[in-house]
Amino acid sequence: MIEIAVDIMGADNSAEQLFGGVTKALDNNKDLKVVVFGDERELSSYNVEKYGDRIEIIDAPDAITNGENPVEAFGLKKDASIVKAFKYLRGGSASGFVTCGATGAVFVAAMMTLKKIGYVTLVCEPKKTDGRPFVIADCGANVDCRPDKIIGFSHMGVAYMKSIGCNNPRVGLLSNGAEDKKGNEFTKKANELLRNGNINFVGNVEGNDIFTCAADVIVCDGFSGNILLKTIEGTAKSVIAEARSLGIEGDALDTLYDRYNYTECGGATLLGFSVPIVKGHGAATAATVKSIIDSAYTLAKNNIVDKIQSEFKIA
Amino acid sequence: MIEIAVDIMGADNSAEQLFGGVTKALDNNKDLKVVVFGDERELSSYNVEKYGDRIEIIDAPDAITNGENPVEAFGLKKDASIVKAFKYLRGGSASGFVTCGATGAVFVAAMMTLKKIGYVTLVCEPKKTDGRPFVIADCGANVDCRPDKIIGFSHMGVAYMKSIGCNNPRVGLLSNGAEDKKGNEFTKKANELLRNGNINFVGNVEGNDIFTCAADVIVCDGFSGNILLKTIEGTAKSVIAEARSLGIEGDALDTLYDRYNYTECGGATLLGFSVPIVKGHGAATAATVKSIIDSAYTLAKNNIVDKIQSEFKIA
Repeated sequence: MIEIAVDIMGADNSAEQLFGGVTKALDNNKDLKVVVFGDERELSSYNVEKYGDRIEIIDAPDAITNGENPVEAFGLKKDASIVKAFKYLRGGSASGFVTCGATGAVFVAAMMTLKKIGYVTLVCEPKKTDGRPFVIADCGANVDCRPDKIIGFSHMGVAYMKSIGCNNPRVGLLSNGAEDKKGNEFTKKANELLRNGNINFVGNVEGNDIFTCAADVIVCDGFSGNILLKTIEGTAKSVIAEARSLGIEGDALDTLYDRYNYTECGGATLLGFSVPIVKGHGAATAATVKSIIDSAYTLAKNNIVDKIQSEFKIA
Repeated sequence: MIEIAVDIMGADNSAEQLFGGVTKALDNNKDLKVVVFGDERELSSYNVEKYGDRIEIIDAPDAITNGENPVEAFGLKKDASIVKAFKYLRGGSASGFVTCGATGAVFVAAMMTLKKIGYVTLVCEPKKTDGRPFVIADCGANVDCRPDKIIGFSHMGVAYMKSIGCNNPRVGLLSNGAEDKKGNEFTKKANELLRNGNINFVGNVEGNDIFTCAADVIVCDGFSGNILLKTIEGTAKSVIAEARSLGIEGDALDTLYDRYNYTECGGATLLGFSVPIVKGHGAATAATVKSIIDSAYTLAKNNIVDKIQSEFKIA
């Protein structure tokens, strides 16, 4: 059994809606066990007998919202789902965590309760034009960092790609030009470190090559990665809206929309702790919850934490 | 008459092809005069009588390529189109310059020969989802800069937007979060300066809001702006390619492709000198040349240089 802890509180949609994703995930993976953190009085009314001991419910009727100071809230709200979930995660029986709750609270909780493994890195997994997945590391956890951190983000991205079936991931550095000497002071130094390191480095990658280049891992500081990720989403939305305005119709456009709408349809994964933490969008639906539980399940089943540790052993 | 200097050397396509864009522009704007820099022997074979004194040809049979050291080449290649064109621009009769030649050489030539007006800023003009133009400033001229430069880029972007008919341009700061306190050290400081300045500042803008937000000017450092611009292009290409793979057909997709393909179909404008310099892609076609001459003509006709000067007077 792969055990994944799931927080269904603190999102925009009802716990009932999010819970629909939990059952979909259980139906999808027969060796998945979920430990759900939410309001037991509500959850007990759902019919989950069919899953037997593959589902466990831990009462956590409270939630930490985005408006609150995460550090204070984490200290005060003993019944908040995030507080109870991280206490549980520290116990070590779950090998992944999924939440659509307040990002700040999740980050603080992880820093305060979990053992660190490698570098704290937020990664997101878009798809290339040919459908092949790739990862952007870091895409927001480190908006101010030194160039040497890029080596750490590379190892984290490589471990992630290895955990989703890419055997020898190639790393590309996000920059404003393909040549090694192109870039700002940060990327020029990072390029030098990557050239001299033991990373499978394919050189600089530009924004217009992301979807077609050889790189399986796009490595960058968290600020640039966040701009990159959100610009991909914004552009795809705009292109599809214009396609509709030009009279193009059909479900194919909806398929496309979902494929590029990572934060709403998928999630971002916070790596660097004793378990992978997959964070879904606040507006998550049952489909989102199902898909982020699937991600956490895949990463856990393929021992991403071991892969991170061996990445840094080699390094 | 609005006089624009046009360099037709040093691009991937033949001077003859590029010259086709010159005549299209002359047909399009009856008060446009172009001074063309290229190989006179070749150019003299074209039939341009119908344009009378609206076209002038200055012999410049040589070109500076991207491979060359721009500073050295500018000093040595007396017959290079860029060298001759900038000597001419210094004379002051032309009020705009258009080239598809080597970017480095153009930048060096401008720095060495032209009077500086405001801040040297590379701007690019995409379109919002609703078709409204906006500008990204800076998108590559300043990849390493201090936060206070953002105020200068804002004024340059505002002057540009005023020159294309936007009366009271709103400025948004590219960041990784909408709230003022979100961002890296650079954007937090820049946000503070914009809040306390005399700019029509609408706050931080995220990559996924670029096409729908209120901002007419997206201000950022040149590295982030370059990532933003190229990611828009790369994503649009990828979405359109996938749309085709999903069976969507028709000219509408080609229209969309061109609309998002700024560097190949349009150009970027280097501001901060005594004339606006519109730089087309190396792979420019006649259509590209026509469109970048139109841009330079519009900026010149609306006195962008005066507008830049009054921006900084107010500041």
